[in-house]
Amino acid sequence: MKIYRYPIKETWTDLVKRPVLEQKEISGLIKEIFEEVEKKGDKALIEFNKKFDKAETVSIKVSDAELQDAEKQIDDELKHAIQQAKENISIFHTSQKQAIQKIETTKGVVCWRENRAVERVGIYIPGGTAPLFSTVLMLAVPANLAGCKEIVLCTPPDKNGNINPAILYAAKLCGVSEIFKTGGAQAIAAFTFGTESIPAVNKIFGPGNQFVVAGKEYAQRFGVAIDMPAGPSEVLVIADEQAVPDFCAADLLSQAEHGSDSQVVFITTDLKVFEETIEAVGQQVKDLPRNELAGQALENSSFILVNSLEEALEFSNLYAPEHLILAIDDFEKYIPEVQNAGSVFLGNYSCESAGDYASGTNHTLPTNAYAKNYSGVSLDSFVKKITFQHLSKEGLQNLGKTIELMAEAEGLFAHKNAVSIRLK
Amino acid sequence: MKIYRYPIKETWTDLVKRPVLEQKEISGLIKEIFEEVEKKGDKALIEFNKKFDKAETVSIKVSDAELQDAEKQIDDELKHAIQQAKENISIFHTSQKQAIQKIETTKGVVCWRENRAVERVGIYIPGGTAPLFSTVLMLAVPANLAGCKEIVLCTPPDKNGNINPAILYAAKLCGVSEIFKTGGAQAIAAFTFGTESIPAVNKIFGPGNQFVVAGKEYAQRFGVAIDMPAGPSEVLVIADEQAVPDFCAADLLSQAEHGSDSQVVFITTDLKVFEETIEAVGQQVKDLPRNELAGQALENSSFILVNSLEEALEFSNLYAPEHLILAIDDFEKYIPEVQNAGSVFLGNYSCESAGDYASGTNHTLPTNAYAKNYSGVSLDSFVKKITFQHLSKEGLQNLGKTIELMAEAEGLFAHKNAVSIRLK
Repeated sequence: MKIYRYPIKETWTDLVKRPVLEQKEISGLIKEIFEEVEKKGDKALIEFNKKFDKAETVSIKVSDAELQDAEKQIDDELKHAIQQAKENISIFHTSQKQAIQKIETTKGVVCWRENRAVERVGIYIPGGTAPLFSTVLMLAVPANLAGCKEIVLCTPPDKNGNINPAILYAAKLCGVSEIFKTGGAQAIAAFTFGTESIPAVNKIFGPGNQFVVAGKEYAQRFGVAIDMPAGPSEVLVIADEQAVPDFCAADLLSQAEHGSDSQVVFITTDLKVFEETIEAVGQQVKDLPRNELAGQALENSSFILVNSLEEALEFSNLYAPEHLILAIDDFEKYIPEVQNAGSVFLGNYSCESAGDYASGTNHTLPTNAYAKNYSGVSLDSFVKKITFQHLSKEGLQNLGKTIELMAEAEGLFAHKNAVSIRLK
Repeated sequence: MKIYRYPIKETWTDLVKRPVLEQKEISGLIKEIFEEVEKKGDKALIEFNKKFDKAETVSIKVSDAELQDAEKQIDDELKHAIQQAKENISIFHTSQKQAIQKIETTKGVVCWRENRAVERVGIYIPGGTAPLFSTVLMLAVPANLAGCKEIVLCTPPDKNGNINPAILYAAKLCGVSEIFKTGGAQAIAAFTFGTESIPAVNKIFGPGNQFVVAGKEYAQRFGVAIDMPAGPSEVLVIADEQAVPDFCAADLLSQAEHGSDSQVVFITTDLKVFEETIEAVGQQVKDLPRNELAGQALENSSFILVNSLEEALEFSNLYAPEHLILAIDDFEKYIPEVQNAGSVFLGNYSCESAGDYASGTNHTLPTNAYAKNYSGVSLDSFVKKITFQHLSKEGLQNLGKTIELMAEAEGLFAHKNAVSIRLK
């Protein structure tokens, strides 16, 4: 833990810096993997499953029988939980739909926007230490609401060639079209080029390790879009004197357990809350099954005592956290001060896990200070907004002179002529 | 011109391909330019102005005197035109503002989104053959409406170290904070790192040559966002028997005059309109001052005769044009069929130049088939949408079990504990 008491503003630029991650030079490997998948298709994916995931896969496509089997393996309590989460995510993302609004900017000139779904989207779900079926909900639910024609999911198989049943159950529940057993950069390459089984997609979503991240970056060279740039997960908690140190500690640890590179920042105006939260973190971490990962993340964590909540918010905006918890009494007052953050949790009962799983907001959010210039995933991420315009003859008469003058001043006479020829 | 009569669908994949542009290997040069600007700041920019633009610049910042002088150089007619365009762009982009909508997804769980402006944005305006002051309007107006704190503009000086007065006039009118005389990849590097004069920005907008495009791509490695990937400008016109060949030809040429790499596609169901439009293009091109550029673009243009409007729309969606003109009688009927396009112009009087300059829609649009997965610039491009949530104690009680079950199933016990500790 790094502890700072009333750090002066001149030091903040250093305090908000994320640790520079060790970047292995993997671009050569990514290029090779992409070439192999483009050339050999499914065969390459089966070989990579063996090589990287030690898995024998006969067919990379998940069968109906596997889906039905998965459903049987999930107990009813968890099913109901997943259904409640899905319902809330659906409600919140449905509220993001916008009605078409036609605007007459000049008499006879009508402009508007209409949404069209991105036709084919790819969802990547990592394997590894935690089966992230919640991410399936966060990506497939809005994709479905947006009207995407094909929602394709790739995730690496375990050593027996199987996928975690909760991932399969969530995918089926949320209208995923097809599920494939492939992971890493090879899955991203399959989304990019398509294979015999896997359709090429227009946009790729989802988290992953450094190979997935590098793959998504590389995929953009081939015209594919991605959800957003990636970085380790983060939380920044701002607490005042009425905050509950045990709650704050639990929130900090729920971020820390994600991985050793997770970022955890605690800021308070109150010395007692400061000391008790540090104490509580030390106590609670002991009981966690993932205490080794959490402990590593805590080594890089910052605990900062400041003079005022205004100062805390100013620091937070400079840091631009993925998750911001305002464990303060008068949070309404400080909402307008939040400039840069992915998702904000207000008061003592809005824990980050609520948004991670079930409140309805999306958990795919900008990390690594990208909250300064990116939004989290929403319904918007799955649509294009196309502008339409209709000019009547009268409309063009009203606007024509303006267009002609501007086109001429830019030296673009064919642009001018497209108006003049119509007004003749 | 490439002429296709009733091409079978199997050939369409080839017909929608954009010509592969000759990509010079410039990444080494871009890296050098970025390093130089990061290290030497303004001094590097002054040197690059001399080297690349043959311009002597004493100060890279445009002075108030220069701005006042520019205003005097623009005649009143053009000023009024620019003001009318600005007004329409303001009206249409203001209509894109969304009211905050608080949603109670579960009793006691309230979620919503709020917009926050991207704090600092950079607008790049190219020099070269046409002084694109219209692009200043298209980017600075929504930036201003969104509430961006700093709107910084870079554009290369001419040989006398001056900027086109229309660019300066438009910039001042639309609330640009500061204007700097620097172009190419060095301007993008200045936006990325900042210099003594130029503030570093969070997001870079605007068109440019291959050095600017490569610079914008490179800038993203340093955490800066960009508006969208770039490619040559395009129009696809769909015409039926009531279309006016002279109008269609004028629209095709207004695209062709942009540059030799511009893409122009004409599709019709009517043989007479087909032949007369080809004829009219040949006639009109002769009178254009930029007929050499337009002529080169026409060499790559396609004129396609098809059996039905349904087929025309299907082709268009596969091509995904930046601009789509539906010069057809019953355009209302075909609007729902438009899946992939940047901006759509309806009927015989909605020429593309209307949207390029003054109707109110944005002209910064996805090219090169990116209309499949990107939207054009809008108010959204200048804001982040931050999610907020508040759970009351009752709200967490209603949702707690679901969160606990899901967290446990993902093996994330600290996530579970953040709930359990509050419900104890």
